[in-house]
Amino acid sequence: MVIALDVLGGDFAPEAALAGAKLFLDQQPAEVTLLLIGPEEVILQGLGIYAQRENVKIHHAPDQIGMGEHPTKAFREKPQSTIAQGFSLLKQKAADVFCSAGNTGAMLVGSMFTIHAVEGIIRPAIASFVPREAGGYGIILDVGANADTKADVLVQFGEMGSLYAEHVMGISNPRVALMNMGEEEQKGTLLTQSAHQLFKVNERVNFIGNIEGRDVFNDKCDVIVCDGFVGNVILKQAESFYDLVKKRGFGDEFFERFNYEQIGGSPILGINANVVIGHGVSSPEAIKNMLNTSMHMADSHFSDILKKAYNE
Amino acid sequence: MVIALDVLGGDFAPEAALAGAKLFLDQQPAEVTLLLIGPEEVILQGLGIYAQRENVKIHHAPDQIGMGEHPTKAFREKPQSTIAQGFSLLKQKAADVFCSAGNTGAMLVGSMFTIHAVEGIIRPAIASFVPREAGGYGIILDVGANADTKADVLVQFGEMGSLYAEHVMGISNPRVALMNMGEEEQKGTLLTQSAHQLFKVNERVNFIGNIEGRDVFNDKCDVIVCDGFVGNVILKQAESFYDLVKKRGFGDEFFERFNYEQIGGSPILGINANVVIGHGVSSPEAIKNMLNTSMHMADSHFSDILKKAYNE
Repeated sequence: MVIALDVLGGDFAPEAALAGAKLFLDQQPAEVTLLLIGPEEVILQGLGIYAQRENVKIHHAPDQIGMGEHPTKAFREKPQSTIAQGFSLLKQKAADVFCSAGNTGAMLVGSMFTIHAVEGIIRPAIASFVPREAGGYGIILDVGANADTKADVLVQFGEMGSLYAEHVMGISNPRVALMNMGEEEQKGTLLTQSAHQLFKVNERVNFIGNIEGRDVFNDKCDVIVCDGFVGNVILKQAESFYDLVKKRGFGDEFFERFNYEQIGGSPILGINANVVIGHGVSSPEAIKNMLNTSMHMADSHFSDILKKAYNE
Repeated sequence: MVIALDVLGGDFAPEAALAGAKLFLDQQPAEVTLLLIGPEEVILQGLGIYAQRENVKIHHAPDQIGMGEHPTKAFREKPQSTIAQGFSLLKQKAADVFCSAGNTGAMLVGSMFTIHAVEGIIRPAIASFVPREAGGYGIILDVGANADTKADVLVQFGEMGSLYAEHVMGISNPRVALMNMGEEEQKGTLLTQSAHQLFKVNERVNFIGNIEGRDVFNDKCDVIVCDGFVGNVILKQAESFYDLVKKRGFGDEFFERFNYEQIGGSPILGINANVVIGHGVSSPEAIKNMLNTSMHMADSHFSDILKKAYNE
C-alpha cells in the first residue's frame, strides 16, 4: 500500500508534516510505503536517517498552494504544487490514498476535477468523527463541502456514511440518523422532512429516524446525516467545547477524544479514490493520525467498495 | 407590574411551578404582582401562607394543555386551559408578561393568534441565551420557531435581538453577527450569503459580520443570528455539553452558566406583548429564574419598544 502525504500542507508545514511522517514510520509495518510529496531537498533534510528506509519514497514537487489562495485558480496555475501532484499520482494509481493538511478548497477541487465523483453520486461529502460517551466514534457528514443540499443528496450522505462505518470503522449494520430539530418525522425544515420520508423507504441503510443536537455525543446512532452548513457548525462548536474544557484543566479519556489530533483527518466520500483532509493547524501528532486514518481507508479499499455499491 | 405564571405548565407542574413561585416571592419587592393561573384549590393548597400576600393573585383556570397535545387543536378546544387564559389576560392587559414551562407549540399559537405579530415583523422568533467566557450571556435567535427562513427574516431576527440586548440586557450598541460556516462574506448557504449582504446595508444594527460554530461562547458578538433549525441544534448541543461536564464532576462558574435553570426562559420576540417560554423539565429554581427573565422583559417594556421601532 502506498500512502501519499503532502509535505507542504498545513500552517506548520513542512516541519509538522515531516515530524508527523516520522512518528508514523516509527509505528508502521514495512509493507506500508510512505510517498512524500514536496521539495526533495527539504524532505531529505527533514527526514534525516528516515530517508534511507526502504518504505519511504519521495516525489519532488517544488510548488505550494497557500492556505489563503483561491482553490480553483491555484490548482490550475500550479501544476507542480504538492496538491496538484498528489492528485496526479492518485489518478495514475501510483498511490492508494492521498492526504494533506493544506488548502481544503484545493483538495476538493482535485477530488472533483482530477478524480471525479463516483458515477451515481450526486455530491461527494466531507466526513468527520465525533466521540461517543460509550467509547469510540460516530461519523458525521457532510461537514462543509455542500452548504445547500437537496433531500436525495442527504440520503446519499447516509448511504456513504453507512458504508464507511461498516467497511472502514468495522461497525456492523450501522445505525443512520438524520439531524433534526425534533424526533417526530414531521419536524424540521422542508429539506429534513423530505429526507426523512426518503430514508424511510431506503433499503440500503438502517435508518433509525431523527436525532437532535443533544444526541451528537451519545450512542443513539453510528452515522449522523446533515447538510454541510449544519455539520460545520456542529463540528466547530464541539471543537470550541474541547478548548473550553482543556483551558480549565478538566478532561478525561472521553473529552480527550474530542481532540482533532486523535483522528487527524476527514475523508472525502463519493469520489473514485481515497482522499483525506487534515486540519490546517495540524501538529505532528495530528499528521501521524491523519496518516493512520488514510491507511485504514486505503486498507479497506473504500473507494472501490463505494464504486461497486453504486454501479452493480 | 403584573407577571402571569402558568401553574400547570411543565413536566413537574403544579409542584415545581408553585415552588418556583415561592422562591420568586422570597426575593421580590412588593410592587411586583404575581398572577397565578391554574385551578384555584391547587394553587391555594400549594402556596400555603404565601397565598395571603398582597402581591399574589389567583386566576382560576381548571384545564391543562398537555405537553404532547396538538398545539392549535388544544388551544382552540380548551379555552379554560391555563395557557389560553394566560393569553386572554395578556390581551386584556391584565398582565404585563405571561410565562409558562408548558407546551411550547401552544405558547406559539397563543402568541401568533391571540397576541399577533407586531406590524412590520415578518416572523416572530424564540430567543435564547448562551454563556460567554468573558462573563454574562449572549442572545441567540431563532432557536426553533422558524425552521425555514428567508434572508429578510434573518435580518429582522438581528434587529429584534439587538433591541432586546440593548433594552433588556443593558448592552450598549450590541454587536450582531450572522452564524455561518466561514468568516468570509461569500461563504455559506444562499440564505446566509443573502442575509450577509442585507445586514451590510442595514442601519438599525451594528453588524460585525459572520461568526462560526466555534464562536458561540466567546466574546466576538452579543447577538447571534441564525434560522430556527441551526439555533435549535446549537442550543441542544450546548445543553448536552453541560450534561457531559456535570456528569464527570467538572464545572466552574462559566460552565454553571450553561445550566438552563440560570435563565429559566426564552422570550418570544416580535409579538405585541411580553411572553416567555420555559423548559419542559423546569425545576423550581428554573421557574424562579423564568419569572426573573419575565420581570426584566416587562420592566423594560420590550414589546412597546419593538412596536415603536417598527411603526415610527
